[in-house]
Order: sequence, then C-alpha cells, then structure tokens
Amino acid sequence: MSVTAARGFEASGVAVGLKSTGKRDVAVVVNRGPRSAAAAVFTSNRAKANPIMWSQQVIADGVAAAVVLNSGGANCFTGSFGFQTTHQTAERAAQLLGVSAGDIIVCSTGLIGTGDEVFRAKVLDGVEQGIAQLSPDGGEAASEAIMTTDSRAKRAVRTQDGWTVGGMAKGAGMLAPGLATMLVVITTDADLTAAELDVALRQATRVSFDRLDSDGCMSTNDQVTLLASGASGVRPELAAFTGVVTEVCLDLAEQLQGDAEGASHDIAIEVIGAASESDAVEVGRSVARNNLFKAAIFGNDPNWGRVLAAIGTTAAAFDPYDVDVSFNGVRVCTAGGPDRPREDVDLTPRATRILIDLKSGADAATILTNDLTHDYVHENSAYSS
Amino acid sequence: MSVTAARGFEASGVAVGLKSTGKRDVAVVVNRGPRSAAAAVFTSNRAKANPIMWSQQVIADGVAAAVVLNSGGANCFTGSFGFQTTHQTAERAAQLLGVSAGDIIVCSTGLIGTGDEVFRAKVLDGVEQGIAQLSPDGGEAASEAIMTTDSRAKRAVRTQDGWTVGGMAKGAGMLAPGLATMLVVITTDADLTAAELDVALRQATRVSFDRLDSDGCMSTNDQVTLLASGASGVRPELAAFTGVVTEVCLDLAEQLQGDAEGASHDIAIEVIGAASESDAVEVGRSVARNNLFKAAIFGNDPNWGRVLAAIGTTAAAFDPYDVDVSFNGVRVCTAGGPDRPREDVDLTPRATRILIDLKSGADAATILTNDLTHDYVHENSAYSS
Repeated sequence: MSVTAARGFEASGVAVGLKSTGKRDVAVVVNRGPRSAAAAVFTSNRAKANPIMWSQQVIADGVAAAVVLNSGGANCFTGSFGFQTTHQTAERAAQLLGVSAGDIIVCSTGLIGTGDEVFRAKVLDGVEQGIAQLSPDGGEAASEAIMTTDSRAKRAVRTQDGWTVGGMAKGAGMLAPGLATMLVVITTDADLTAAELDVALRQATRVSFDRLDSDGCMSTNDQVTLLASGASGVRPELAAFTGVVTEVCLDLAEQLQGDAEGASHDIAIEVIGAASESDAVEVGRSVARNNLFKAAIFGNDPNWGRVLAAIGTTAAAFDPYDVDVSFNGVRVCTAGGPDRPREDVDLTPRATRILIDLKSGADAATILTNDLTHDYVHENSAYSS
Repeated sequence: MSVTAARGFEASGVAVGLKSTGKRDVAVVVNRGPRSAAAAVFTSNRAKANPIMWSQQVIADGVAAAVVLNSGGANCFTGSFGFQTTHQTAERAAQLLGVSAGDIIVCSTGLIGTGDEVFRAKVLDGVEQGIAQLSPDGGEAASEAIMTTDSRAKRAVRTQDGWTVGGMAKGAGMLAPGLATMLVVITTDADLTAAELDVALRQATRVSFDRLDSDGCMSTNDQVTLLASGASGVRPELAAFTGVVTEVCLDLAEQLQGDAEGASHDIAIEVIGAASESDAVEVGRSVARNNLFKAAIFGNDPNWGRVLAAIGTTAAAFDPYDVDVSFNGVRVCTAGGPDRPREDVDLTPRATRILIDLKSGADAATILTNDLTHDYVHENSAYSS
C-alpha cells in the first residue's frame, strides 16, 4: 500500500520508456485532502539537480498537492532546458489536477546529465498517463516506478490510534547522509500543520536516513517528502506522530541497506560511551566509510586494527588505548590491544554488528552501512548511473 | 642505491622470519656523519603505533643517528609490552652503534595488533644482524626489507652541485594524506641544520605524499624521516635543497601510486581555477575518495556526474553551473552540463588525467589516486593487513 495506505491519497506508476527495460518509470502521488500540509528535506550536496531547486521553492509555504517522480534520468546538470523541464512537469500536473504549479513537488533519479527533449516528452507523457491512472490502490505501482538499480520496491506502513503513516523509498547506491539520502515519499492522514510535519520529519530523518551510509557518496537528487491529508480527522500528539514517522523511516532505511548495490553484509556500527551524540555519529561514519574495513567484512575478517585506524582520523573524544571493539558479540580488542582471538568471530551471516565503546561518556549512535564487495565494484563500473 | 646514495650513510636489509615468505624484513639505516641532523613528519592519525610515539620523542631535538624499520608486524595497539619492544629495539641498536637510544628512530609496518614475544625476539635479532651487515651499498637491501604488499621496492636519487638526496619508500594500501602516509627514509650528504631539514621536509611532503590518496584510509604507523650527514661539505641554498627533496618525494609518491594494491589506473586529478590552494586540495581529495567515481574509472566510464556530485560535498568556492570537467583531455562537462560525448574519451591507458576548472580563482593543486577495482577488494578482503 505504501503511500496510499493513509486516507486521502491516490497514486499511480506508469511506464513511458524512460527505462530501457520498459518497466514503470513515472510515479504520481496526490493528496486529496482535506488538508495539503507538507514538509521536505533535501540533499545537502551543493551540486543540486533541477527538481531539488524547484521543490525547495514549492515546500517553502508548507503546502503541496502532489509529488511527481521519475526514474531513468536525473535531470541534473542539464542546464536551463532541464530546469524548464521540471517547471513544465509541475505545470502539466497542476493543470490536470486543477491546482497551482507551485504546489507540485518534482523528483528525478537516474544518470546525471540526462534531460534532453526526448526525456522531457517522456516525462510529460508520464504526468498525463500517471494522473489518468490515479487510484487509492496505486501505492504499489508508484513504489515500483521509482526503482533504479533497486532489486525490490521499498514500502512501509504503520497505523496507530486511527491514523496511518505510509511510505515508499528508492535507493541502492550513492547512499550517504546529508539530511536526505534518496527519494522517499511519506503520507499520513493525521491532521497536523506544516510546521509540525517539518519538526517530525527532521527528527525522524536525523536518526534514520542520516545514519545510513552505504558507500559514502552523496547524491545530487535526494529528497524526502512528507504529505498530510488530515483525512483521519485525528490530531495526534507531535511526539507520538514523530515516533511513528521515525519507525517508518527506519524501516525504509533498513530496506535500503538490505538492497544496497552488491553488498553481502548489512553492517550496524553501534558506538557507545561517546562524549556526545555527534561524536558517536562521527566515529560511526568514519568506520562506515573506511574501504579497508568494508573490504575486510566482505572477507569475513574481524580486522579491529582498521576500526581503530578509522576512529583515529576523527576529532571525537577518545583514548586510543582505552577503546573496546566487538564483532558480532565477540570482543576482539580491549584497552586498545588484542582481546579474544579473531577465530572466535563468525562473520558469515549477512547481519553484522560492530560495537565500539569509546569509554568517554554516555552518548551513543548507530550507523548503518554495507561491505565493499566485488559486486559493488562490478555494478558501479560496468553500468553508468 | 636509495638511502646509501648520499655519502655518510650505511644500510642493510636482513631476513629474520617476521615475514612468512622468508624475505628481508628488518632494515637499518645509519648516519655516519660528520653531522647527524634529522627531521621527520608523522601520521596525523590519533591512533598511533608505538614506534610513532617513540620516534616523535627522538626527533624533538633534531638529532638522529639511525633508523630501524621492520615489516611483518605493525607493533600497533600491542600495549605496554609493545612500547617496551620499541624501546628495546632502540636500546639494542644504540648499544651496538655506540650512540644514545634517544637518537634511534624506529618504524614498523604490517598487521595492527602484532607485537608478542616472538615478534620482539625477531626484531631484536634483526637489529643485531642488520647492524652486523651494514654497508655503503646496503640501500637496495634496505628498500626491499620494508616492503609489505608492495610488488617492487621504491627508490629515488637526485644529485646536484656536489650533494645528493636519496630515498626509499614502502606503501601499497592505506595510503591517505595526513602529513606522512607511509614509511619513507630520505638521506642527504648536504650540510643543513635540523631546522632547515624540517622546513624542507614539510614543504616537500605537503605537495607530494600529502596529495597522494590511494584509498582514503590513513595508517597508524606512517612516517617520513630525513637524515643529513653533511658529508659532502656543501651547504646548499634552502630553496634549492627543498626543490630536490620535493622531486625525490614526488618520484617516490608516484611509485607508490603506480604500485597501489589492485589498481588498474593511476589517476591525477588536477583542480584549477580554485579560489585558494586549500580549496583545490579539498576538491581533489573529495573526488579521489568517491567510490562511485573510482569504480567508474575502473570501468573506463568518464562519469562526470559523479565528479560534480563529489565536488558538491565540499566547502570550496564554486558555482555548480559553471564548472568544466575533462577526462584525458576531452571536455565532457562545461558550465555544469554535458559537453563532448562520453564516447570521445579513451580511458584504457593506465595513466588517467582529470581536469576540473572551478572558475573561481587562480589557484591549483593535483591529487594522485587510483581506481577501485576487483583486485583492490580481493587483496583487502582475502588478506589481513
């Protein structure tokens, strides 16, 4: 169900030839109200795609009526022609939906530099077909239409006290934090203001998508959009709502991690004993981005030396000679020296847990990442994306 | 000749069983004077090996009589026993050479966490054998004894106006800047003070080893040591001397790049039009560390979108819509949009040149890196290091 699980939403996913495979490649998600409150977070990459620049303007007033998303081309670095394509996409959708173009969020994903006249014609065709096929059951088709190298669609739904939060996500490579890290649309029939949605979304993404760092590469096109229809008539407490949005975001983030390009291990790096949460995040990210560590996990090697070497490049509070490191529950390093033998560690399961105790405070954070594999190199060298 | 090209130096390389292959694994380089001026730069990793902590004390007074180096074990995170091993290494060498232990630089390389009693006994044996075999022709043997996964020894020599600078280096993985990036010993018979050597070495490493970023991973053990014997009796201008030391460092850095683990391309990322040299370095490093870019080069794909996405993560002054990117002389991106077709680029040669014009100033820098290959993943997943 994903984005159509909450009342007040319709969606669709159509195929217009942007993907050479002939699979669905344009999705539309429409908020039928009664409310049209919205919030969004965007990639912090300074090299931004045209849809990002457009959507940042759209979201400024906290109102959005619909989201149009395409796969099969990023419409990034395609010049003023590409920006006009985004503008025309919003205008065409607005016209057909009877709303203002300034209330249409636009998202694109695919190869950077794609955005010629053929691309534009197909996207506009997709808007028309997509709006014609809108349905309260269209969430599944929409979630398929945003897939790129994803092997499966990502959807999540939570219902509580009469209101629902549902979402869809795409992302398989170029996953690194920076507020948003992929294309995500989340809908809810709870009745909340745009300002409340903004608080909830920022809090939720901060501890979910922002802590997923599959390959250290930050995209130019990523955004997470949250739309609220108010159709449930229920106005939840903001804390409860934030909790549920966070659950949906974490569920989607774990699905993204589990489908990361070429990965053979899903690695959770839990940093405890940190002097601050930001220290814990910095240490976790540094380890998550260390290619030698990531290659060692692929090789089922509990190489704690590479973990300490990665921690040592951070500015976090820690004493290199008072750090413990465990791999899947086996402490192989204590007080900055060898502890239990490496042979005691079983790294064959896909789920991998690294526990780092900095012994410098009471804060903690968990970063999700993947290993560095032959398949990762193959997928990102053999195919342009 | 490497470290014995300059007059006043003797060296040796012996095999004591630290390497399972039976190859040379302990090197000794001795300065016979008349001067014993020295300078060194060290890894900026906060997780430092025992030999780094020792050698930082030794170099503080600008005097060093000898350098003892071992491969086959990093003596890093081996507790107080490991530090005592370093101390005993220096004491044994000092005793045999008739100098102070406080004038013996110690370096180690190999697997972190290696440093038990067997390791200590072998290293001390290596000191004895190495000092017994010291020779004015020992530079070649010494350069072989510091190899780890290196496929060949790295040596460089320059002679000018009656004085010589020679050096040896090891390093094949874990190459990333942070003052020093590998084990390097450089010797000269020029007559300079320790303060002058320090100026020359820092300037030389800043534009050579500091701009080599093979895999973004910073080691715990790296140091570059410069020893001056004064045996030529010539006192060169500091600028001329710095120029020659820089040439030797660049030569060794390019040899390290050319022998990087598993690499199939040697990539020079030249950033021009930068508002400052540090902007140029930041942009070059960001591109050099982008796994998607590195995998694309392995796949002979001139993926300029990944270059722009990497630039966008920096704080450097630039306008994403006014950047030019060329691959091997073919400008595939101009003004932040597509230019010449990707098909015009030939990325099959190992030597690869990326030119990035930020159009924001007059400063420039070149960063050296390698591609991300199946062999890199294999070497770093199948073997512990």
